[in-house]
Amino acid sequence: MKCKKCGEKASVNMRQHRMALCRDHFIEWIPEQTERFIRKYRMFTRDERILVAVSGGKDSLSLWDILVRLGYNADGLYLGLGIDAPTSLSAGSEIGYSEESHRITAEFAQKNGLKLHVVDIEKEYGHSIPVLSQISHRGFGKPCSVCGLTKRHEMNRIARDLGYDALATGHNLDDEAAVLFGNTLNWDADYLLRQGPVLPEAEGLARKVKPLCRFYEREMTAYAIARGIEYIYDECPFAEGATQVFYKETLNRLENTRPGVKLTFYLRFLEAKQNGELFVEKETAQTHLHPCEKCGQPTSAPGLCSFCRMLEKASVPS
Amino acid sequence: MKCKKCGEKASVNMRQHRMALCRDHFIEWIPEQTERFIRKYRMFTRDERILVAVSGGKDSLSLWDILVRLGYNADGLYLGLGIDAPTSLSAGSEIGYSEESHRITAEFAQKNGLKLHVVDIEKEYGHSIPVLSQISHRGFGKPCSVCGLTKRHEMNRIARDLGYDALATGHNLDDEAAVLFGNTLNWDADYLLRQGPVLPEAEGLARKVKPLCRFYEREMTAYAIARGIEYIYDECPFAEGATQVFYKETLNRLENTRPGVKLTFYLRFLEAKQNGELFVEKETAQTHLHPCEKCGQPTSAPGLCSFCRMLEKASVPS
Repeated sequence: MKCKKCGEKASVNMRQHRMALCRDHFIEWIPEQTERFIRKYRMFTRDERILVAVSGGKDSLSLWDILVRLGYNADGLYLGLGIDAPTSLSAGSEIGYSEESHRITAEFAQKNGLKLHVVDIEKEYGHSIPVLSQISHRGFGKPCSVCGLTKRHEMNRIARDLGYDALATGHNLDDEAAVLFGNTLNWDADYLLRQGPVLPEAEGLARKVKPLCRFYEREMTAYAIARGIEYIYDECPFAEGATQVFYKETLNRLENTRPGVKLTFYLRFLEAKQNGELFVEKETAQTHLHPCEKCGQPTSAPGLCSFCRMLEKASVPS
Repeated sequence: MKCKKCGEKASVNMRQHRMALCRDHFIEWIPEQTERFIRKYRMFTRDERILVAVSGGKDSLSLWDILVRLGYNADGLYLGLGIDAPTSLSAGSEIGYSEESHRITAEFAQKNGLKLHVVDIEKEYGHSIPVLSQISHRGFGKPCSVCGLTKRHEMNRIARDLGYDALATGHNLDDEAAVLFGNTLNWDADYLLRQGPVLPEAEGLARKVKPLCRFYEREMTAYAIARGIEYIYDECPFAEGATQVFYKETLNRLENTRPGVKLTFYLRFLEAKQNGELFVEKETAQTHLHPCEKCGQPTSAPGLCSFCRMLEKASVPS
């Protein structure tokens, strides 16, 4: 297999694009494509300040690397979730998942002279994610629901408090297709009409963008390796058996038989949302939202937002 | 496991409904549910004349059995496809698929004193389906495309010529979910907006209904066996490797892990179409259709309809 651009030996073969590239052209192609997606979906401009949510994994570190290479004004945000200390929920957490991902992220920032904000959930709220999950009795024995809730709340809080124009996350095509697959199995109108590469800013809510949403997971792995980016290989110890992992496996089986099906599934969905032939027009204004009485972030619940209710529940001695 | 209705030993366990039934209550439950679906989706009434498309398989024969048991005025239509004679496409056709299914269907009609219309494609159009497919060069070496086209055309023709109010087919939940799955992977607006248990009649087009669309395939197998209906066990020899079979396998894998997911997927889709929160309103009038110059059936193509074009192509000596 030869590189499409220079004819040298290719090192990345992308069946879904019917294209193979050598290492050097591959690490140019990824930012070129990212730039194309940023413009196509009007994510942000070079005049704006971007906050990249970095976890220490290949996707978010590569995203940060790409945005900086493209000349965007991008700082990092690392959330310390505390998935290290032994708890009854901590199966496999002996690896020091959060500690290791923090070290990797901080080293990446230092090596590249980049600005990294760090928020430690335990320092901020008194408990790590696994403990908050346990004492708030949310999530049926898994911390994933509390973790997602906390990350969304904190990312939005920091992005707004520090005046960033957009919050960028490293979701890749496999992530987005799996979420879409789950939403489709349930035909969840709210989620389907909201899902996309850009969630526009609204009163109290930062703009959220996903510049890597059209790259296969294996492309991002290849990029991180080719760029020599050190990243945490382990999945979060709680991820195993999660519904999303199950949907990813299903889509991978489909993809193995029909290369490109995952990309088609996601892109045609975006097209269908744009051309108005299938879906109703989404209400752009988030109606029925009001500020949380405690933190001020928008919520549809009366009184406190879900995050503050979770905290309140967690601080009640059980 | 005990029967929910009588407490005797159950013979059919339906995990997706969290219900088990004994044989006697199961063969009552299936028609009761069918009656419910017929009314819910306003398929037809007892004053109307129904034409049931029967293939000799478990679904269509069970459908006919159920409709007659419920007191509906239902005649049968058997299409002789000629999937018997050796051709270069006839892998596995030594079983005499069409011959055997015709025998089974005719015996079912005779035994139950029912009226069966038989149309033999070869007698009507000079060639069997596999031969028509070969000489018209449609379908990439598989007769499935020509077969589908021909069946749709003939079923509609007979239903209208003989003045039936509705054409009923034996599509079950597995069929409908697999079609929906394929349409969703491509986000095909035309197909998604048309798919449902009822396709209303329009100028030149008979009303089409699918009274079994909410039953799992295994429920229909259990019904046919419990009722002692003789049916053809073999799939059409050409079905293997078809895309729909592949989608069915994918959905079965999902269903094994989450009982009920197939039913939820289909029912929430129907709900979403009804409540107007997700999909645009479908144009009920089929615009841009005009009668085919040869057969008079509605077509969007200029001049001849797809079926008549296929015939024309097939009669040109190659």
